[in-house]
Amino acid sequence: MKAELLAALREAEEYVSGQELCERFGVSRTAVWKEIRQLREAGYRIEAVQNRGYRLCEAPDSLEESELESIRRTTWVGDRIVCFKEVDSTNTKAKQLAEEGYPNGTLVIAEQQRAGRGRRGRGWEAPAGAGIYMTLLLKPEIEPDNASMLTLVSALAVTAGLRSATGRPVGIKWPNDIVMNGKKICGILTEMSAQVDYVNHIVIGIGINVHNESFPGEIAHMATSLYLETGVHYQRAALIEEIWERFERYYDIFMQTQDLTGLTREYNACLVNLHQEVKVLDPKEPYEGKAMGITPRGELMVDTWESRRLVSTGEVSVRGIYGYV
Amino acid sequence: MKAELLAALREAEEYVSGQELCERFGVSRTAVWKEIRQLREAGYRIEAVQNRGYRLCEAPDSLEESELESIRRTTWVGDRIVCFKEVDSTNTKAKQLAEEGYPNGTLVIAEQQRAGRGRRGRGWEAPAGAGIYMTLLLKPEIEPDNASMLTLVSALAVTAGLRSATGRPVGIKWPNDIVMNGKKICGILTEMSAQVDYVNHIVIGIGINVHNESFPGEIAHMATSLYLETGVHYQRAALIEEIWERFERYYDIFMQTQDLTGLTREYNACLVNLHQEVKVLDPKEPYEGKAMGITPRGELMVDTWESRRLVSTGEVSVRGIYGYV
Repeated sequence: MKAELLAALREAEEYVSGQELCERFGVSRTAVWKEIRQLREAGYRIEAVQNRGYRLCEAPDSLEESELESIRRTTWVGDRIVCFKEVDSTNTKAKQLAEEGYPNGTLVIAEQQRAGRGRRGRGWEAPAGAGIYMTLLLKPEIEPDNASMLTLVSALAVTAGLRSATGRPVGIKWPNDIVMNGKKICGILTEMSAQVDYVNHIVIGIGINVHNESFPGEIAHMATSLYLETGVHYQRAALIEEIWERFERYYDIFMQTQDLTGLTREYNACLVNLHQEVKVLDPKEPYEGKAMGITPRGELMVDTWESRRLVSTGEVSVRGIYGYV
Repeated sequence: MKAELLAALREAEEYVSGQELCERFGVSRTAVWKEIRQLREAGYRIEAVQNRGYRLCEAPDSLEESELESIRRTTWVGDRIVCFKEVDSTNTKAKQLAEEGYPNGTLVIAEQQRAGRGRRGRGWEAPAGAGIYMTLLLKPEIEPDNASMLTLVSALAVTAGLRSATGRPVGIKWPNDIVMNGKKICGILTEMSAQVDYVNHIVIGIGINVHNESFPGEIAHMATSLYLETGVHYQRAALIEEIWERFERYYDIFMQTQDLTGLTREYNACLVNLHQEVKVLDPKEPYEGKAMGITPRGELMVDTWESRRLVSTGEVSVRGIYGYV
C-alpha cells in the first residue's frame, strides 16, 4: 500500500488525518504509522501534527516502484513497473521479461547500467543515480516494417516531456537524439524481435542525462545533462511520468495510421535540423543539402540544388554543417 | 575425445587398432577402452577383435554432441553445438544464448520441445525423439529488411538435404513449408532481433518430422513424416549434417548479393506450386492465378488474367486450388 499512501499524501491539499488513511486502506493506525516510518527512512520528509495528521513536505529523487506508482497518471504504460538497482542494460532485461511473458506496457527502470548500450553496439555512459535508464516493452499489432517509426514517436514524447518539465528549448536531432544547446541529453535505442510478418515485441530504451555534473573528456563537447543546462536537479520520477503521458497520446495517433502522418507537424516543430544545411554521410556518396522535415514514414527530406532526397532512418548519419547539431 | 574417437572409427575402412587410437589421442589403452565402453552403453555397437582392433557396426539415432561432431563436415555451422533433452523451444533457447554472447553458427538441438512454436505463435507438435528440432544462430552483417529471405535459403537447404538423403521427391510450398506427397514434413520459423538498421541476431528454427508413425486427427491429412513416406527410420544426425552442409553453400551465394538472385532457379525447381493455379488469401481481396516462381527478393509471382502480382513473404497465405498444396 506504499504507493497508495504516497498518492493519498500527494492528493491532499494540506494534512490528511491518520483516521482517514486507516479507513481508506482498511488497516490499523499502527499499520499506517509503520508505513510512514518506512517512507521517512526512504528519504521522504513527512510532517505529523497532532489533530491534523500527516503532510508530505519533500520526496527524495526515488526510482522505487512505490514512488513511480504514486504519481502515475498513464493509462497502460507502466501497468507493470520493474525497478532495479543495477542491470546490464534495461533493454536486455526488458527483452528477457518479454520472453518470460511480461505484458505490453511493462516498464523497466534501473538506477545504473553496467553495460548500457547505444546504437550498433556502442556504449552509453550510465553512472549510478545520475540519469534515467528505462525501457518500455511493447507488443503491438503492427508490421515489422513500421516498428522503426516508434523511435521517432518516443523522441517526440521525450522532447515534449522535457520541454514541459523544464520550460527550456529541447530539440530533436533527426532521427532520435534529444539535444539542448546543441549537446545530446538523451539517446533512444529501439530493438525489435520479429518473425517475417509478425512483431514478437519491441523494446524502446531511453537514457536521459539528469544530474551529471560533467562528462568524460572525449564526449564533453557533445553531451550534457539537465542539471548542466538548467542548474536544477529534477526529480526523475516526475520526468518519467511527463514523458510516458505524452508517449501514450502520440502512440494513439501513430497507431491510427501506423505511420507518422498525424505527428509530422509536431515532430518538425521540434527538429533542430529544420531548414538547416546538413551533410548526409551516405556511405556511397556524401552530399549536402537543406533539411526540410520528415515524411510520414520518418525519412528526412533533404533538398539539394538538384532535387529532394529522402534519407531513411538510421541508414546514414546526418551532421549539421555548423556545429555539432 | 568421444567425438574424435567416433570419427576415427567411422573413418576406418575396417578395424582400427587400439594401439593406433592410443597414439592418435595420446592416452592409455585403458582410457580408450573406457570410452569404447561408454559408447556401447550409449547404444553404439562396436566390435572388438583380438589383433585387429575396433570396428563400428552400428550407431544409435543419437543427437548427442559427440555423435553430431563426429560426422560434422560443415565449415562454420555447428562450431558450437548445444544439445538438450528437452527445451521450451529451440528458438527461445537460441535467443537466450545469443544474448549471452554465443557466436554466429551456434546450433541448438533438442530431443523434445515442451512448447514448440510455429508461425505467429501457433503450436508445433514436437514429441520426444520423433523429430529434429533445431535452431541455427546467425549474427550476419545484413540489413534487417533482407533477413526474411534467409527463411527461403533454409527451406532450400532442408529440401536439398532431404532429397539427397532419401532419394525421394521433396518440395517447397512457398514460402517455407517442406512437403512430401502434398503433406507437410518440415516447418521453419525465422526470428530476428534488430535495431533500426542493424541485425543483433537471427535464429532459424527447423522442425522435421522423422520417426512419427501417426499424427493427431486434426492435422493427419496435412502432416507426414519421413518414416510414413519412406518406411525408413533415418538417422537424425546424418540428416542434420546433410542440411547444414547445403545451407552453408546456399548462404554463401545469398550473401554475395544479400538476396536470392543466385538461388531463384534452384528454389523454383523445388517449388511444388510452380505453374500451378493458386489462391492468394490477401486479406483485402483474395484472388487466383498461376504461380510463376519467386523473384530475387523471395516474393511469389502470381499471374492473373490481367497482370502479374507479387506476393510478399508471409503477407498472405497461398493455397493450391487442387488439394492442400
